[in-house]
Amino acid sequence: MNSYRQKKFEYVTNKYQNRGRLLISCNDKPGIVAKVSQWLFEYKANIVESNQYSTSHTDGLFFMRIEFECPDFQKRYSELKESFHEVASSFKMDWQLQSASNRKKTAIFVSKEDHCLQELLWNYERGELYTDIAMVVSNHETMREFVESKGIPFHYIPVTKETKPEAEKAQLELLESNEIDFVILARYMQILSSDFVTRHPNRVMNIHHSFLPAFVGAKPYERAYERGVKLIGATAHYVTDELDQGPIVEQDIERVDHRDSIEELKRIGRSVEKSVLARGVKWHLEDRILVYGNKTIVFD
Amino acid sequence: MNSYRQKKFEYVTNKYQNRGRLLISCNDKPGIVAKVSQWLFEYKANIVESNQYSTSHTDGLFFMRIEFECPDFQKRYSELKESFHEVASSFKMDWQLQSASNRKKTAIFVSKEDHCLQELLWNYERGELYTDIAMVVSNHETMREFVESKGIPFHYIPVTKETKPEAEKAQLELLESNEIDFVILARYMQILSSDFVTRHPNRVMNIHHSFLPAFVGAKPYERAYERGVKLIGATAHYVTDELDQGPIVEQDIERVDHRDSIEELKRIGRSVEKSVLARGVKWHLEDRILVYGNKTIVFD
Amino acid sequence: MNSYRQKKFEYVTNKYQNRGRLLISCNDKPGIVAKVSQWLFEYKANIVESNQYSTSHTDGLFFMRIEFECPDFQKRYSELKESFHEVASSFKMDWQLQSASNRKKTAIFVSKEDHCLQELLWNYERGELYTDIAMVVSNHETMREFVESKGIPFHYIPVTKETKPEAEKAQLELLESNEIDFVILARYMQILSSDFVTRHPNRVMNIHHSFLPAFVGAKPYERAYERGVKLIGATAHYVTDELDQGPIVEQDIERVDHRDSIEELKRIGRSVEKSVLARGVKWHLEDRILVYGNKTIVFD
Amino acid sequence: MNSYRQKKFEYVTNKYQNRGRLLISCNDKPGIVAKVSQWLFEYKANIVESNQYSTSHTDGLFFMRIEFECPDFQKRYSELKESFHEVASSFKMDWQLQSASNRKKTAIFVSKEDHCLQELLWNYERGELYTDIAMVVSNHETMREFVESKGIPFHYIPVTKETKPEAEKAQLELLESNEIDFVILARYMQILSSDFVTRHPNRVMNIHHSFLPAFVGAKPYERAYERGVKLIGATAHYVTDELDQGPIVEQDIERVDHRDSIEELKRIGRSVEKSVLARGVKWHLEDRILVYGNKTIVFD
Repeated sequence: MNSYRQKKFEYVTNKYQNRGRLLISCNDKPGIVAKVSQWLFEYKANIVESNQYSTSHTDGLFFMRIEFECPDFQKRYSELKESFHEVASSFKMDWQLQSASNRKKTAIFVSKEDHCLQELLWNYERGELYTDIAMVVSNHETMREFVESKGIPFHYIPVTKETKPEAEKAQLELLESNEIDFVILARYMQILSSDFVTRHPNRVMNIHHSFLPAFVGAKPYERAYERGVKLIGATAHYVTDELDQGPIVEQDIERVDHRDSIEELKRIGRSVEKSVLARGVKWHLEDRILVYGNKTIVFD
Repeated sequence: MNSYRQKKFEYVTNKYQNRGRLLISCNDKPGIVAKVSQWLFEYKANIVESNQYSTSHTDGLFFMRIEFECPDFQKRYSELKESFHEVASSFKMDWQLQSASNRKKTAIFVSKEDHCLQELLWNYERGELYTDIAMVVSNHETMREFVESKGIPFHYIPVTKETKPEAEKAQLELLESNEIDFVILARYMQILSSDFVTRHPNRVMNIHHSFLPAFVGAKPYERAYERGVKLIGATAHYVTDELDQGPIVEQDIERVDHRDSIEELKRIGRSVEKSVLARGVKWHLEDRILVYGNKTIVFD
Repeated sequence: MNSYRQKKFEYVTNKYQNRGRLLISCNDKPGIVAKVSQWLFEYKANIVESNQYSTSHTDGLFFMRIEFECPDFQKRYSELKESFHEVASSFKMDWQLQSASNRKKTAIFVSKEDHCLQELLWNYERGELYTDIAMVVSNHETMREFVESKGIPFHYIPVTKETKPEAEKAQLELLESNEIDFVILARYMQILSSDFVTRHPNRVMNIHHSFLPAFVGAKPYERAYERGVKLIGATAHYVTDELDQGPIVEQDIERVDHRDSIEELKRIGRSVEKSVLARGVKWHLEDRILVYGNKTIVFD
Repeated sequence: MNSYRQKKFEYVTNKYQNRGRLLISCNDKPGIVAKVSQWLFEYKANIVESNQYSTSHTDGLFFMRIEFECPDFQKRYSELKESFHEVASSFKMDWQLQSASNRKKTAIFVSKEDHCLQELLWNYERGELYTDIAMVVSNHETMREFVESKGIPFHYIPVTKETKPEAEKAQLELLESNEIDFVILARYMQILSSDFVTRHPNRVMNIHHSFLPAFVGAKPYERAYERGVKLIGATAHYVTDELDQGPIVEQDIERVDHRDSIEELKRIGRSVEKSVLARGVKWHLEDRILVYGNKTIVFD
């Protein structure tokens, strides 16, 4: 393991050993915050960060993310879960209790383009993405050397029209046997099957190289050029069954003008893509994204 | 006339009395700049600003905008045009020679929303839009008082499905009898007929309240909200026969998040819309926009 | 009163009649949120929006803003204050309980430049700044007609070196006799005395026409031009005793280049100034800004 | 040599073999463009890109950058220079004639922080920075392995207060013996001596980690945090004898808020620094920057 990352991770693991994260969604009604914070207080927990959001009164949904410090959090984790179960039941909550010192296990899927992968690994090596990148999967051998030089396993799984089902089976087996929590499509350029996607709801994040919903599908820069737009963008989103229609996590744009060729648009776009994806990934790893219908709530 | 604007316009008119603008497009080949600048030199003209752009070698088109100071420009205007005609012929140029001290005659079309109109008139009163706003046309009476208080004629032309042809006829007559050069749709919210549009190629500018080509057509903010985008935008474009498909002049965006209601999106959007439209209008008035296919070249 | 604003204000007043805002700052320790939310629950209040922030462990300060809906809020306001007093005492809180339907009374100070004033009044007339603008004060007569046309009292108080103390006395009397809560310096261009400022801590907001701390003091655009910067900015801040050193509320920038004259920088800057100030003012009116040392916490 | 870069460079070298760049500055007067373009025409050169800028009439300076395609450019290079010498004399021009296929020789100076170096080398490996990076010089060994893995020589020259003159001597010898054209300070964190700087006018580019002129000197993020700014920035500038006072090439900013610790400001800032520096370097390598007084003209 890269020693800089190692030190940083050890520092974070140690610093966050008593830190928990509670994610809640339920129907809105008075008393939720009182009940939850009272429960935290009973465990002598101190709230470090708290975000909440209620939708309009028509549907009246309530979402909350609380980060807290609780003495002996690790030791009492099961007890806390059990105890919170009762609080949750009375409000019919969907909820999760996460340990902030746990690292999610991540797999990155790439094709031949390396900019998003480079950005993720650079942030990873600096210890800024608190995760374990367990593997990189690709349908090309191009990135093997680079990935392996970082000490990360590289799996080459070629994909053709004919072998796609078989290839996906191999991918799914890799994900399962390695207990992967989070899949990042860092310009993977292949459409995943409905089966693959529905098995990992809100756990596969893609970077699309346009400002969605403009230029859904293939060749967005070519079409942006054709249309003569003055800004190009990128969109990080969770992958769903419908192409480029999943919940949007983050977007950004860069200014272009008439002098920029398609090649230039791609060059400028790469820089937007990589930073948009890196932001989205960071938020996911810190449990900052709640999905609601086809939208995201980002407690950044 | 507003006295601040009056003073500023007199200053500009005086300052620019010898200033000309040459706009050129033709097939690219060596010697164009040499010939044009030689021609300018013969008239003792000094180039103040010059922009050019050549498309890729596949089509090989050449575009140029030159601003120059020429002694006795006004007096020699006809002579200059005649003389340049020869230069132009040898390269088969499309070209225009404009006097920078001339003000285009502008009509603004509005509906009930006033933010774009306000921004334009505020810039106008400051003398920053060098034009004569000859009239405001609206299908509602809402803005009459405000417009007339600025000393600008207001024409109320109601439009219903049935009366549309008739209404357009009245509008066209107004434009013609007032020798209007430029029509600004400042949130007019009515679709102009093919006939109206084709009579004014690249002379009708619209502000669309989305980042085109996302959310073409009606209710873009509602659809942006539904889709859960993280940025909203606005697009100034010339109006063509196809709805929201004309050459894009300028675009910009503003960041939004999950907490923003449709009402908030509209509020934030108004601020983007008005500044995007004001920039596009300024460029048009300064002859900075060349249209090429369905794209614009903006020599800003 | 402008009828559009009137309708919007009536709507808001009605909608927010049961809405309160609690602003809290104190030393951080476990149980604060539990106690506060328990207290709200006892009054059957529903939390609509809640933000909190704790500084690092070195000083350990806690800040909170809660917006809540409480049945019979207006009627029970005194009771609520009295009751919360006890909660507050146990944590030694600085706190305020505001009624969201109350409008602060605002005075705008201007000199000759109108863009910030125009932006504020336009937002005011749309009902987007929920306040009562009780007066505009100026050391020039320039804006009288415009201000009075909006039905807002205009007070001309000329200021010279000699008459400054006297002028400030007149201003202070106006503010007091009208019970003004909030003073906006919308390009007022005069330095207020230490006495004036210390009487209104965090209640006087200024727009400075640079990206502070660059170009403190006079003629920032001239100095930005001289220095050859590639971005110009604006800063909204609370006014303190030290010139341009008060807590920063909001900042933004716009891109410029070598072709932009000082005149152009000013033109571009005006657009940044007015939107930065309008955002800062909106946040202040919604009690979204907490001041801590010489910094602001903006719960936007 | 990295094979991707090799291919791209071969492609560019081949594509640009007949491409020249003419950079001109002189006093403004009529006829310059005519003369220059006539001269180009005589050599059958086609202008590909042309930018010019005249300062205000007070000083009346003229700047121009022309990119052109000229048959047999390489072969006729000496002839062209000699011939243009005459044109230049008649206008008393400062000028350069560059071959666009020539690559400048670049040295990068770093300390321990790697983000700017990484960004430059990544762009370099993609062939997007058309230059030969002849060496990386550092006062620490930290980056040796990474730099050498890219096949770039790494020179460790430690610097202490006492050894500084000696260290600079060693650096200067390295630059001279390798005929370095361009020095990039990619977070080098050492102040160069007046002697070093004046030997390389407008050929040493630094990235300063603030939005200059705010936070000149050391620890800008700490001071930005202290001041409570809402935006942080970075500035690429040519190095002159006065610390952080050289001509500004490029600037950009990123939004921050009260929750961001100094550590977070640095993390966000790294991303701005690296992209600002990369843009500045690209412009320098393409001869797009002209220096005028203490300002830059960027023909981007």
